[in-house]
Amino acid sequence: MVVGVDAGGTASRALAVAADGRVLGTGGAGGGNPNSHPPERAAAAIAEAIAGALTGLAPASVLACVVGMAGTSKLTDPAVAAEFERAWGRLGLGARPRPVSDAEAAFASATAEPDGTVVVAGTGSIAARIRKRHLASVAGGYGWLLGDEGSGFWIGRQAVRTTLDALYGSGDLGPLGRAVLAEAGVGPAAPGAAHRLITAANAEPPVRLARFAPLVSAAADDGDPVAGRIIEQAADALTRLALATREPGEHTPVVLAGSVLGEASPVGTLVRERLSGLPVLLSADGVLGAAWLAAVDAFGEHAPRPDRVP
Amino acid sequence: MVVGVDAGGTASRALAVAADGRVLGTGGAGGGNPNSHPPERAAAAIAEAIAGALTGLAPASVLACVVGMAGTSKLTDPAVAAEFERAWGRLGLGARPRPVSDAEAAFASATAEPDGTVVVAGTGSIAARIRKRHLASVAGGYGWLLGDEGSGFWIGRQAVRTTLDALYGSGDLGPLGRAVLAEAGVGPAAPGAAHRLITAANAEPPVRLARFAPLVSAAADDGDPVAGRIIEQAADALTRLALATREPGEHTPVVLAGSVLGEASPVGTLVRERLSGLPVLLSADGVLGAAWLAAVDAFGEHAPRPDRVP
Repeated sequence: MVVGVDAGGTASRALAVAADGRVLGTGGAGGGNPNSHPPERAAAAIAEAIAGALTGLAPASVLACVVGMAGTSKLTDPAVAAEFERAWGRLGLGARPRPVSDAEAAFASATAEPDGTVVVAGTGSIAARIRKRHLASVAGGYGWLLGDEGSGFWIGRQAVRTTLDALYGSGDLGPLGRAVLAEAGVGPAAPGAAHRLITAANAEPPVRLARFAPLVSAAADDGDPVAGRIIEQAADALTRLALATREPGEHTPVVLAGSVLGEASPVGTLVRERLSGLPVLLSADGVLGAAWLAAVDAFGEHAPRPDRVP
Repeated sequence: MVVGVDAGGTASRALAVAADGRVLGTGGAGGGNPNSHPPERAAAAIAEAIAGALTGLAPASVLACVVGMAGTSKLTDPAVAAEFERAWGRLGLGARPRPVSDAEAAFASATAEPDGTVVVAGTGSIAARIRKRHLASVAGGYGWLLGDEGSGFWIGRQAVRTTLDALYGSGDLGPLGRAVLAEAGVGPAAPGAAHRLITAANAEPPVRLARFAPLVSAAADDGDPVAGRIIEQAADALTRLALATREPGEHTPVVLAGSVLGEASPVGTLVRERLSGLPVLLSADGVLGAAWLAAVDAFGEHAPRPDRVP
């Protein structure tokens, strides 16, 4: 059997999968991203999820284990890598866990093709060029301070900015502006509403601006033109990011992942329109991608694909 | 006599000026911006600067006192306002200090006209419409998290972003890219240079990205096209900001203030070009503007203008 793990910022999930694709066990634990948690805690969470998936199974029978995670670059730090090795060593697995980026796991969750593009847009945004199921290069992914165009952070920030433009300009707030002020806890007729909105936005960690992003989708669905423009700009940015990782005329799959590119998201709909003519796929659960990558490690690329988490 | 104060983030300076415009005394102290310092410390610094300017003079003879400062909106908090009243009360001045925004002081430092526009671009950026020497409305000034297009923060961030684009893309670094990596302490041939640059940029407070801005001016002067484009984008943004505060056809002065719009700055040069046809002035020292506003309070708008700090 093999094990796949999806280690995110808030939760880690693991699947044990048999050679025939049957799911043998599942496990879960807290966040396993070493960028958002101390490395020893992240490593322990991943180990706990793996141990959970192997309950009643023999760890030594694990032929391959792939851990999809954000923040793999953190593992280039030898001290961090050592923490992970220690935590994993205690599991007694038959194979050493192989960390891959969450982008590689998302790509593999959607397609068995070896080459293509994956665009991930959640709180942040990044596009990756995938070759032989490995991340060959990236576009974007600079983080909220330096970039992340089209991400939830960026969309939320645009929502606040356009609301400030309206408050300082015409004073006319549309549905989006009213929703932004309500989310920030500022009355639209409050004196100094603009200043209070700036203060509210700065009172929380910057990435929390992403909390305003769902308001943009809702207002765009209701026909708010300001929200519609933000959605279009986000779609343009994410389309540019996707194309930046591709050769001219390349016809490999483009896999869309993350909440901003979900099936019901207006940004996702527009990106699929802009990329029409290309095979565009929605990512499935990243843990399925990681489990299949582990199956490929153990059994080769014709390994059956586990297609759902029980 | 009257007193003018320029209360900045790192220093506060005060001038005592006679009715005929002669400077009678100068004083200085630490930062007096209540956004970057605890209010009691900011208030104490301003009071110390005023007391210094009045050394050997009679505080009760002060007929007007104007304090130009960033962060005046902080004074709408009654607790903060009370701190300032306490500190100023102890000075025994003949007039209660009147806080004005640094933008109003910058405008008054350059012109005796009552109406116009002032654009301030230092670490942040803002444009203000001035009517009867008061700030009537603003454009921009949302702060680094939400805006500040064309500011030193924004220019520095673009410098880092374009360097990342080059590192992830062609790999060819021009003069600006090399200077950015050197400033960040990252060797251009270091493995993972892009990732190390992202880490270095995120290791300091966000506004410290402004430290990369002077590299853009220098590289643009040396003909680096990447730097040239950033300078043009900054000039476009600041020009837009200026025009957003003006009526169509308005012919009042436009006062440029802040390091990004200084005489020798390439951004300032471009903004002056873009606004050619309008009376564009460079701000003088804000403390002169504050002192003249105090003189207008005391003696009317024909009060002589103090024209330099001794």
